[in-house]
Amino acid sequence: MPNASPLDELVSRLRRGHTLGTIADLLQWDEQVNLPPGAAEQRAAQHAALAEVHHAAASDPRIGEQLGALEADAGKLTPDQSTVVAHARRDYDRATKLPAEFVREKAAQGSRGYHAWAKAKAADDFASYAPVLEKNLEFARREAAYLGHGAAPYDYALDKHDPGLTTTTVDRLFAELKRDLVPLVRAIAASPRAAEARAVAARLKGFPVEGQGAFLREVTAALGFDYARGRIDVSLHPFCSGTGSDVRMTTRFNADQPLDALFSSIHETGHGLYEQGLPATHLGTALGLHAGMAVHESQSRLWENQVARSRAFWRHFEPRWRALFPEQTAGVTSEELHLAVNAVEPTLIRVDADEVTYNLHIVLRFELEKKLFAGELAVRDLPAAWRTAARELIGLEPANDREGVLQDVHWSDGSFGYFPSYCLGNMIAAQLWARVRAMRPALEEEFARGDFTWLLGWLRENIHAQGRRHSATELVQRVTGEPLSPRHLVAHLRERYGALYLG
Amino acid sequence: MPNASPLDELVSRLRRGHTLGTIADLLQWDEQVNLPPGAAEQRAAQHAALAEVHHAAASDPRIGEQLGALEADAGKLTPDQSTVVAHARRDYDRATKLPAEFVREKAAQGSRGYHAWAKAKAADDFASYAPVLEKNLEFARREAAYLGHGAAPYDYALDKHDPGLTTTTVDRLFAELKRDLVPLVRAIAASPRAAEARAVAARLKGFPVEGQGAFLREVTAALGFDYARGRIDVSLHPFCSGTGSDVRMTTRFNADQPLDALFSSIHETGHGLYEQGLPATHLGTALGLHAGMAVHESQSRLWENQVARSRAFWRHFEPRWRALFPEQTAGVTSEELHLAVNAVEPTLIRVDADEVTYNLHIVLRFELEKKLFAGELAVRDLPAAWRTAARELIGLEPANDREGVLQDVHWSDGSFGYFPSYCLGNMIAAQLWARVRAMRPALEEEFARGDFTWLLGWLRENIHAQGRRHSATELVQRVTGEPLSPRHLVAHLRERYGALYLG
Repeated sequence: MPNASPLDELVSRLRRGHTLGTIADLLQWDEQVNLPPGAAEQRAAQHAALAEVHHAAASDPRIGEQLGALEADAGKLTPDQSTVVAHARRDYDRATKLPAEFVREKAAQGSRGYHAWAKAKAADDFASYAPVLEKNLEFARREAAYLGHGAAPYDYALDKHDPGLTTTTVDRLFAELKRDLVPLVRAIAASPRAAEARAVAARLKGFPVEGQGAFLREVTAALGFDYARGRIDVSLHPFCSGTGSDVRMTTRFNADQPLDALFSSIHETGHGLYEQGLPATHLGTALGLHAGMAVHESQSRLWENQVARSRAFWRHFEPRWRALFPEQTAGVTSEELHLAVNAVEPTLIRVDADEVTYNLHIVLRFELEKKLFAGELAVRDLPAAWRTAARELIGLEPANDREGVLQDVHWSDGSFGYFPSYCLGNMIAAQLWARVRAMRPALEEEFARGDFTWLLGWLRENIHAQGRRHSATELVQRVTGEPLSPRHLVAHLRERYGALYLG
Repeated sequence: MPNASPLDELVSRLRRGHTLGTIADLLQWDEQVNLPPGAAEQRAAQHAALAEVHHAAASDPRIGEQLGALEADAGKLTPDQSTVVAHARRDYDRATKLPAEFVREKAAQGSRGYHAWAKAKAADDFASYAPVLEKNLEFARREAAYLGHGAAPYDYALDKHDPGLTTTTVDRLFAELKRDLVPLVRAIAASPRAAEARAVAARLKGFPVEGQGAFLREVTAALGFDYARGRIDVSLHPFCSGTGSDVRMTTRFNADQPLDALFSSIHETGHGLYEQGLPATHLGTALGLHAGMAVHESQSRLWENQVARSRAFWRHFEPRWRALFPEQTAGVTSEELHLAVNAVEPTLIRVDADEVTYNLHIVLRFELEKKLFAGELAVRDLPAAWRTAARELIGLEPANDREGVLQDVHWSDGSFGYFPSYCLGNMIAAQLWARVRAMRPALEEEFARGDFTWLLGWLRENIHAQGRRHSATELVQRVTGEPLSPRHLVAHLRERYGALYLG
């Protein structure tokens, strides 16, 4: 690039690193969807080799030179260019402060950790998994230290997923939420209709997997997921991976829990719509990158909860659902279906949790992570601490570690500090939802006609097209006109579930 | 590696390059099995970025230094170490003589070419594909020129897949084969039993894809394919990819041609067994690499033709096949099944070709490739030249280019010089088969009991475990005690098909 400007050169190098990153994402997707059981070591070697070249690309000294030149003349940059440069600086400093050997080791450890977790969970054997967790914590602490955050490694873990987020902020938001939600969950659980909702859900049995797959593809395509630029497959733990023109979601099927695959797919569709909606011309820079995991989760939660658990949504899709499963749905009324879709049952498993209780699962994990990082809790004491917290927050105690500390994949590859994003995402979704309802009173009538285009268009413009221009809290303030708060989430839950259970 | 020997350092660098190569293989597999249609450009960028880092790893100057040090003291190397060094030198020279920019462009062109081919084939539109072929030929010529073979680019293309192979050698072997096979194919096609075989094959209809998939998994597992270290999926064109603990085969299903998916899977199983049988401790060096594509094809052909088209093989598997498809097989006798399995019908499509005619498809492609590279044939004249050659060799003329020049994937990403390996593989398979039958008279009785372990063990020891120690011709000489010749193939075909059709 003999005559390219420093900015053009910078963007070209960022794109190259981004492309290598998308290959790493594909390896990860493939590992969870396709990898033969005997190939774990070979995959770990691939992760390690790719992490090394990815790291080399992201820490290319010429990026540092170009950043220096651009920052020296920062007054000439447009606001968008400043965004690109500022985030590139953040990433570059992060990449250059981590030794290549550390990055390689951490990637290999992440791959081995995933397989150790899957094995430990299958065998309900926390003891075999504990050394992996110890090692992952050690890697997380070392990483924070390399980046100058050795004194506050958990703040660093939060900031990694949501720039600017701190333990103090999360503590404050979660304390307010917990104060309102624990009594709400207790009241709903004690309601006679809670048992009725569970009974209806339990009657939804024997839904063939093929039909479930066909239905969820129809639904997710109607919401706007573009299957020419993505796909859906099956994995142990549902997730969404990839960006731009290759966005891959996963789900899992249970013939006797037909709402599970459906709602997990709609959740992943929210993530997928965000990734498909990022500006394609800016992929590789902050302008083509999501705004952090809390905003990402707000997109999945908005579609899953505010949209797909509504009466309006089912007014459109219920006839098709009954047509696909005539025998299985024959004894269920529309009102019963609505109750089953919004069943509240305190459960031990986060991914099976209802919309209300879910947030308490996150509070639990946040409090344990915080203590692990503060050195107030040892890994060997985790199973017991989990049991105590589950009893206090959710009102249930796990009978084994599969229902407790072994249930989630996240810690297996060292993804600490990620869980809070889920609950912050719920808060943001509720706050965005309050805003769009005020702007567009006819919105739910459109849903009832199967028309989700206005909502997707609004999200495309106000959230997706913004890339990483704003932090989560800034974005919420700009789009809704008020600071991030749990009050819209509590109001939404009281409105929907109060009417159903406490009326 | 402060105290590592030059050989240890060399092997470590070769392994790193090999690992990056296995990621490229996975991208390729994923592209043909999973890629969303809108993601072709994104995948091309991934191929290009990975090809660049792969090339950088393979052309690392420290490999050159280590090779220099080892070659200067070559007398101290064991024969195996000499093999490693000699092949590393060959690869290093190849890697360092190709400019990084050329490698990047060629990878992107290969990816675009594949999609252009798939589109052109679907639309029977050779004109849209011709510029891709021109470009691919230009890239092939440029590559040969970079490596000092500008005067004989087709020799270079052959040598790339089978070290040491020349146009002259292939010309001689193929001339002898053509002389014997054209009349044999004509005589069989004229036999009344040929029509009978086709009629039986045409009666095999309505085999559900699920059952076909279950049967071919059972068969390929019984032959020895280890599904803990591999998998099978569906793609447009069947292939086998990967090595060591992650070997991935593909097939494709047609309910009305149930033998197609079965035999293509057994073919790919032959490739897969070879890759699973390479010495795991030597992956990344010549000791853990296959001996070239002709030997690779000999493995697929041996299992597909010599083993799976035999009466012995079906004595074991026929009952299971009938149990899975009782209605579809009710009107077919065992003798008719044997005839259908060994049906000879000159066809226009190579991958549908019978064991006899198949070789003439290869002779056709070899003769056209040779002329394209010699400048004796222009790309625009390819469709007509293909039609003429098909009429002369196979006795049929394509009605359109989908049945002619557009049928094969190979040229779409520039894989010229590959086709001859298929036919040389048939020759090697027949020569190996003559040898094992002489050594193990009870072999087919073992097959009839479903026991394929002796054959696999013999191949593991004599072929798979040898890695790339010997060239194809050396290996054949060592294992069979005579030079490579088409006579065993002709004898095998005369024996099997003479008995069926000309008796």
